Amino acid sequence: MTSPTKSLMGDACGEAREESRARPSAAIRVSMMPKDTNAMGTIFGGIILSYIDQAGAVEAHIHAPGNLVTAAMREVEFVAPVFVGDLVSFYAETVRVGRTSITVRVEVIAERRIGKEPGKHRVTTAEVIYVQVDQDRNPVPIEKG
Amino acid sequence: MTSPTKSLMGDACGEAREESRARPSAAIRVSMMPKDTNAMGTIFGGIILSYIDQAGAVEAHIHAPGNLVTAAMREVEFVAPVFVGDLVSFYAETVRVGRTSITVRVEVIAERRIGKEPGKHRVTTAEVIYVQVDQDRNPVPIEKG
Amino acid sequence: MTSPTKSLMGDACGEAREESRARPSAAIRVSMMPKDTNAMGTIFGGIILSYIDQAGAVEAHIHAPGNLVTAAMREVEFVAPVFVGDLVSFYAETVRVGRTSITVRVEVIAERRIGKEPGKHRVTTAEVIYVQVDQDRNPVPIEKG
Amino acid sequence: MTSPTKSLMGDACGEAREESRARPSAAIRVSMMPKDTNAMGTIFGGIILSYIDQAGAVEAHIHAPGNLVTAAMREVEFVAPVFVGDLVSFYAETVRVGRTSITVRVEVIAERRIGKEPGKHRVTTAEVIYVQVDQDRNPVPIEKG
Amino acid sequence: MTSPTKSLMGDACGEAREESRARPSAAIRVSMMPKDTNAMGTIFGGIILSYIDQAGAVEAHIHAPGNLVTAAMREVEFVAPVFVGDLVSFYAETVRVGRTSITVRVEVIAERRIGKEPGKHRVTTAEVIYVQVDQDRNPVPIEKG
Amino acid sequence: MTSPTKSLMGDACGEAREESRARPSAAIRVSMMPKDTNAMGTIFGGIILSYIDQAGAVEAHIHAPGNLVTAAMREVEFVAPVFVGDLVSFYAETVRVGRTSITVRVEVIAERRIGKEPGKHRVTTAEVIYVQVDQDRNPVPIEKG
Repeated sequence: MTSPTKSLMGDACGEAREESRARPSAAIRVSMMPKDTNAMGTIFGGIILSYIDQAGAVEAHIHAPGNLVTAAMREVEFVAPVFVGDLVSFYAETVRVGRTSITVRVEVIAERRIGKEPGKHRVTTAEVIYVQVDQDRNPVPIEKG
Repeated sequence: MTSPTKSLMGDACGEAREESRARPSAAIRVSMMPKDTNAMGTIFGGIILSYIDQAGAVEAHIHAPGNLVTAAMREVEFVAPVFVGDLVSFYAETVRVGRTSITVRVEVIAERRIGKEPGKHRVTTAEVIYVQVDQDRNPVPIEKG
Repeated sequence: MTSPTKSLMGDACGEAREESRARPSAAIRVSMMPKDTNAMGTIFGGIILSYIDQAGAVEAHIHAPGNLVTAAMREVEFVAPVFVGDLVSFYAETVRVGRTSITVRVEVIAERRIGKEPGKHRVTTAEVIYVQVDQDRNPVPIEKG
Repeated sequence: MTSPTKSLMGDACGEAREESRARPSAAIRVSMMPKDTNAMGTIFGGIILSYIDQAGAVEAHIHAPGNLVTAAMREVEFVAPVFVGDLVSFYAETVRVGRTSITVRVEVIAERRIGKEPGKHRVTTAEVIYVQVDQDRNPVPIEKG
Repeated sequence: MTSPTKSLMGDACGEAREESRARPSAAIRVSMMPKDTNAMGTIFGGIILSYIDQAGAVEAHIHAPGNLVTAAMREVEFVAPVFVGDLVSFYAETVRVGRTSITVRVEVIAERRIGKEPGKHRVTTAEVIYVQVDQDRNPVPIEKG
Repeated sequence: MTSPTKSLMGDACGEAREESRARPSAAIRVSMMPKDTNAMGTIFGGIILSYIDQAGAVEAHIHAPGNLVTAAMREVEFVAPVFVGDLVSFYAETVRVGRTSITVRVEVIAERRIGKEPGKHRVTTAEVIYVQVDQDRNPVPIEKG
């Protein structure tokens, strides 16, 4: 995959801001806690998938103010583990706005602050497709702005 | 106590048991609660994805007794919503056992017991790939039985 | 997609399936996580009691499609501990269907996959009594099928 | 049952304290939140059972400073529902101190502050038996003070 | 600060009751579990702040039977850590009843039962201000009893 | 208070980015779910306080790579409610780095996407003080970079 990291996390704010604090804006950003672990003591994959779903919906809402349902999540490949104490950012970018659906790419970056591999690690990238629906869950066209 | 285990776990497949109770064995089966809902009041997609990850690992452990990490989840398409009160079964089937990885297919069936669309609804099917690892997260070959 | 539903939910009881995978159908089946532990590091008894209540209600709903309230839980004796990583199955069987109540026996089996005592362990057996009620919580007769 | 309510909730602190504020000391006391509800919108029975287990252990620890495991919970009969917003008190009283076990009676009182039935409602009474154990879960004698 | 501990935890029930069991009445009292920990393994400060908010509301409801919103929390200083297994009591005392607001002081005491520093430790004291509101969140005067 | 909103949320990334998507970088950003509500149906104040504590720690870790404990939270005034579905950002800014402590200001902004008051609402601003500690919880000097 041709580095999606760059496009999403790229030079969001120029060089004036000091490096250590320059985190670009994430759709969702959370600190991982012991309650999020699996039997191995690392963060449970399902927790990451849950936040990917939330992050994509945050981005999709920019285009679709109505109710959204998750229609599909394309292949997700986990390339790095996530540990307790990691600050995990879910960067979201709109890929395509269809008639009633929105495709969002979510990139997950774990920032490890304690332990043997400090620094930022790309965890995964996912594409999630949302559909705007009415109260009866019928698709509703998205007004292009 | 005179082994109730036998009567309950015994011949689950004999013909004496009435049809309506014949649920095949799920890797994970849970009843959905209000705490699992999203802002729309339906079950949050991330909850379903979490249980898919758990269910696949339950199946993968049959082949790989060691530690497992989730390596990837192939495309997941949600074809039906899940509501509070639904009994949701995650059926898991091994698709392929590789040298260090196991691919599991998980099918999600929601059984609606209250409301306007009673009965079983297929929610989604997913393929999840697990890798057996050692304490340092290096891949470990799977012994074929 | 060529119906994976059939292969997964189909003839769960045929003989082709190897023995080690033959888990009978549980009303509820979950994998225990670190968030379910008590101060000793084992699974908190209250978590097991919660799932017993859910499992019994799943079974009772087969007979009573309306709202159910838990009226009583008979003595529960814990004969084995449950650990993080255990796959815990809650098997439910109807014991008695009364005029407005249903008595269900729930058996709890922990399947230990990692650690020093692998295999299945019976944790407890409980009887739970549910009453079918209307919106004002008045008992409603159960129609015998 | 000969009103255990009286013995546990009795005049704990004399008459000097004004009535409306005179709550006797509970082992556990919590306010019920929407995340604790079941599909019917009332508090899930499993939540109450979890707190009964915790409350009994708080009392048992007065006698047994070591690790405790829950050995059994005697019959629990639910005589009143619990609603979101209720302040629920779990009063615990030691019934018997055996060689390695402690039996505690827990009484559950819901104080309804909003809605149509304000005031205190007895929800249930349970007896829970705990055993003091060492690191290997072998019973350890309780020193009588 | 001139020891608020004394006024809140004082000799609530006289000397007749044996010392070890004499816990005065708390607004909220809970046992800390592993799911409440932070990355350091101690209890997450946010958990304590959450229960302070609940405990103050329990006390405020004695004066204001309607809906309450948290308007402010005055400075909170944490003087002792809280560990898994601690029994934590949140004592609440009304400080002032205004026209539409109520100020409550909440004192947090951790009772450590296992480990190297057994006994009671004062964790913090906080003042929380609640306002009684109607359905549209407009302030509602408090009737003085 | 002289608008801390401006300094924290200000022109983080220049004008090139289109307005609707220009969210500056938050220390923590989450979407509120039904499980976070109180008995009134709005987001429980304790949830907001929990995330303030987490967000401040994320910022403090930039200066102090070791373990941090929350020493104090200065007065917090809630000026707007938070609802289910709101995207809530916790912006953090270092106010002062002392010898062993770090003071962080956290501003909470709720972005309402559904309902009658869409747009961004300032919820509260808090100052939290963290102390860097060693394994025995003794203060450790902060190295100035």
